[in-house]
Amino acid sequence: MAYRNLRDYLDTLRDRGLLQVIDSRTCKDTELVPLVRLQFRGLPEAQRKAFLFTNVTDSRGRDFDASVAIGSLGASRAIYGAALGTGPDGIGGKWAAAHGNHLPPEEVSRAEAAVKEVVLAGDSFGAGVDTFPHLVSTPGFDPAPFLTGAVWITRDPEDGSYNLGIYRGMVKAPDRVGCATDVSTQHLAIHWEKARAMGRPLEAAVFIGGPPALIMAAASKAPYGVEEYGLAGALNGAPVPVVRAETFDCMVPAEAEIVMEGVIRTDMLEPEAPFGEASGYLGPRKMEKFFEVTAITHRASPVYQGIISEFPPSESTVMRKAAFDAIYLRHLRDACNIPSVTGVACHELASCNMMFVIQLDRPELGQPWQALRAAAAYDASLGKIFVAVDSDIDPESLDSVLWALSYSLQPHRDVEIIRGKVPRLDPSITPSDHAGQYAYPDGQGASAMLINAVREHPYPPVSLPREDFMRAARKRWEALGLPELDLATPWHGYPLTAWTDENVEEAVLAVTGRYFETGEKLAGRRAPPTV
Amino acid sequence: MAYRNLRDYLDTLRDRGLLQVIDSRTCKDTELVPLVRLQFRGLPEAQRKAFLFTNVTDSRGRDFDASVAIGSLGASRAIYGAALGTGPDGIGGKWAAAHGNHLPPEEVSRAEAAVKEVVLAGDSFGAGVDTFPHLVSTPGFDPAPFLTGAVWITRDPEDGSYNLGIYRGMVKAPDRVGCATDVSTQHLAIHWEKARAMGRPLEAAVFIGGPPALIMAAASKAPYGVEEYGLAGALNGAPVPVVRAETFDCMVPAEAEIVMEGVIRTDMLEPEAPFGEASGYLGPRKMEKFFEVTAITHRASPVYQGIISEFPPSESTVMRKAAFDAIYLRHLRDACNIPSVTGVACHELASCNMMFVIQLDRPELGQPWQALRAAAAYDASLGKIFVAVDSDIDPESLDSVLWALSYSLQPHRDVEIIRGKVPRLDPSITPSDHAGQYAYPDGQGASAMLINAVREHPYPPVSLPREDFMRAARKRWEALGLPELDLATPWHGYPLTAWTDENVEEAVLAVTGRYFETGEKLAGRRAPPTV
Repeated sequence: MAYRNLRDYLDTLRDRGLLQVIDSRTCKDTELVPLVRLQFRGLPEAQRKAFLFTNVTDSRGRDFDASVAIGSLGASRAIYGAALGTGPDGIGGKWAAAHGNHLPPEEVSRAEAAVKEVVLAGDSFGAGVDTFPHLVSTPGFDPAPFLTGAVWITRDPEDGSYNLGIYRGMVKAPDRVGCATDVSTQHLAIHWEKARAMGRPLEAAVFIGGPPALIMAAASKAPYGVEEYGLAGALNGAPVPVVRAETFDCMVPAEAEIVMEGVIRTDMLEPEAPFGEASGYLGPRKMEKFFEVTAITHRASPVYQGIISEFPPSESTVMRKAAFDAIYLRHLRDACNIPSVTGVACHELASCNMMFVIQLDRPELGQPWQALRAAAAYDASLGKIFVAVDSDIDPESLDSVLWALSYSLQPHRDVEIIRGKVPRLDPSITPSDHAGQYAYPDGQGASAMLINAVREHPYPPVSLPREDFMRAARKRWEALGLPELDLATPWHGYPLTAWTDENVEEAVLAVTGRYFETGEKLAGRRAPPTV
Repeated sequence: MAYRNLRDYLDTLRDRGLLQVIDSRTCKDTELVPLVRLQFRGLPEAQRKAFLFTNVTDSRGRDFDASVAIGSLGASRAIYGAALGTGPDGIGGKWAAAHGNHLPPEEVSRAEAAVKEVVLAGDSFGAGVDTFPHLVSTPGFDPAPFLTGAVWITRDPEDGSYNLGIYRGMVKAPDRVGCATDVSTQHLAIHWEKARAMGRPLEAAVFIGGPPALIMAAASKAPYGVEEYGLAGALNGAPVPVVRAETFDCMVPAEAEIVMEGVIRTDMLEPEAPFGEASGYLGPRKMEKFFEVTAITHRASPVYQGIISEFPPSESTVMRKAAFDAIYLRHLRDACNIPSVTGVACHELASCNMMFVIQLDRPELGQPWQALRAAAAYDASLGKIFVAVDSDIDPESLDSVLWALSYSLQPHRDVEIIRGKVPRLDPSITPSDHAGQYAYPDGQGASAMLINAVREHPYPPVSLPREDFMRAARKRWEALGLPELDLATPWHGYPLTAWTDENVEEAVLAVTGRYFETGEKLAGRRAPPTV
């Protein structure tokens, strides 16, 4: 089941009917992303596919040797599942099984490493970075093509440990690419800061296209120090084959499509972006790192892999959701010792960064707040709205969450606003130079809202007919040949905690036609109004 | 287009394919509501229908002369539109046109009044209230059948003005029905309190089945003093025919199916409920008013009309939404003088009572807060979450609202919690006898949350490819024969307020393959990192 590279994975997608091949000529600057983007705003998730473009051109009329794969990591949960060698329902299990069972990478010889088929360096550097069909993701707004599915490999300058992470890179010159880490808690930024303190540049290798588990691991926000190579091996079920880089002491994926090597300068920054972000807005131009490329190796006729991000839903929200739901659940339930936590769901239109719904099953006193605070504290830059709900609320369904928000909380009692969050590509923070200060009397900075929508006192039953009546109705519905049902939860009532024997007895009298007995009983309990 | 009664309206529903007739024998205590309920949790709104049961029995094995109509007022917007003599898109216009253009009711003689066909009074009272197939709405939990679609007619004991309102009534005896007004701001409760202060009972007439506009008017939460008869005439396009009641000075609909007359005692209350409420929970047993029935008139073989309420979505959420969206828009925009308000949407899973999303188009400074506070102040018992959004946010779409909540606000700056709301069938208020006080350190009462998710400072463009690229992609998508698209808003990017000429120029260079020129320009703006 393990994939060695992007190509055998694309074969699997094709076999599962999840790959759309486009053979007609497509411009990577103006046409390619818009075409694929349509499916994210216009098709149900189950119909979305990975796309492979085999005939790629650009605005300069060049024809690329490379083909382009996009949507191949997370256009849908089915695709994400395929990338992990499972189905959409096996994703959580795959992540759970991978933790603590890392498989270290396995070095192969240069001769065995497909990524060394072509080497661009020194006199043969040629067009360098410009050899490949880097995509304009948001044509009309983005100022350049950006690397989107590229994984950056750096090593901790102190202890040599590896970090692999996906960072976007603005293509600036045939030998220069931006490197945007956005917030200083990103692990590459930590390596960079250590190198800067030592007065030297940070060596880096960037690969495009590889075994999909490696890219999933790089995207997973594993804690600092967790080596993504080993995590990817565990996810993939086989060690990742790696090979020595050309220019520095570093292992790179031997079956990557493209590897670019060079240094990230630590003495200078350069303006970067704007770029269409997962927030649903273009991100701002900022001073950012840049990567000077000195050598490139690649497979012949490489498959260039891009990721659809920008406005949600997107490939990147599908990927984040699969990882975050599992990671937050594990963190809250296991690391924070809150066994009543039964599920966590982030939401795509919150870019899977901003809202987390935490489901608890009969929590002990205080556990909903414990879970809310622990979730908010997991990452300084993640989460603006955290909601704790009961186990009969589907945390994936906004309708279900809205029901809980409507009738399981009182804002003054159950909502807490916390400060000190780090804004993450969030245009809503008050601009420091904003003139209209009366719009924002209460100022700067980022915050989050913790919402306890767990029912903390006895509740009456859910107001739908009891399950036996609804089951009988469903049989009759089908017998009558009425339209096919797709029932949402809940579709029948159930008692919660506030329901007495007398209530039960009266409900039986009601459905057996003896309700006047109850009426008579209640007449015996009359009282004058209190004024 | 005007309807005289329920029957010509049901003919229209049948003609429009919106009526499902069930001729097989159906028990009104155990089978009827569960069957219809299925469509609200299991079918898309467009497929939902009104149901007419022509062969109704009960748990005692009786066969009723009456048939039962349910879902006939608001199983869908199409049905609600039909009730107003228009289509789903004409509802707002109908309500807007009705305001201020009331048509007073028109008295007809007793001989012309169909509702006088059969009179049950004095010696002929017979089974009285029990003559009709009152429905058990939530079998398994409800303690009795309740009136759900019944309209209560009372007159202000001081000035004689009319109020018509829908209040649920527990069937308690052949001559006694509960009358639940829940909160004391309900208009019937105001009449009752005036009568009580005068030391006399409140006379009342209750009708079931009539011209649909009359029931819509009764359900609309028109301000105190607005006479629903006149409003219904305006909605219907013709005066409502009325006739003198049997037992007191009151006009009742001449073409109603059933009218029950009697008094609501003011010297005594009686326990009532629980009942499956629109909150999604059973409501509590409370001391409530009760109605002593002394005379009944009805059409021969009446059509008994019930309303599906209880767990949302339901007939009552469709009805409330149609009315509330229009009423809140008019109140905010016109009465409160906030012309930037362009739409208000309440939401079904918030039972159309708890969340209101207010859309504003380029509001002036302070108008989002003005709108939030005015909306929260419109009714003490309505609204727990109020959200103000920009004009490019679809207030109907929870996904769209979630996007705004994620990236257009900071909780510490843009969220305000207000107290002093009146809980409305809301089980989340802290029970006064709740033992676990540590769960709720901050106490009693009801509150609401005002959320300003309007972008109050300049924002970058929306991160999707520009419209021209997406339109071209859509053409190509169709030419390639890819699956049919149903595009959500937004499906292309657009600039907001933070976008400079330089941004525009760089975006042009990017899609014309000249992005290295931008890269070179940016290299000229390098600077050392600030530490």
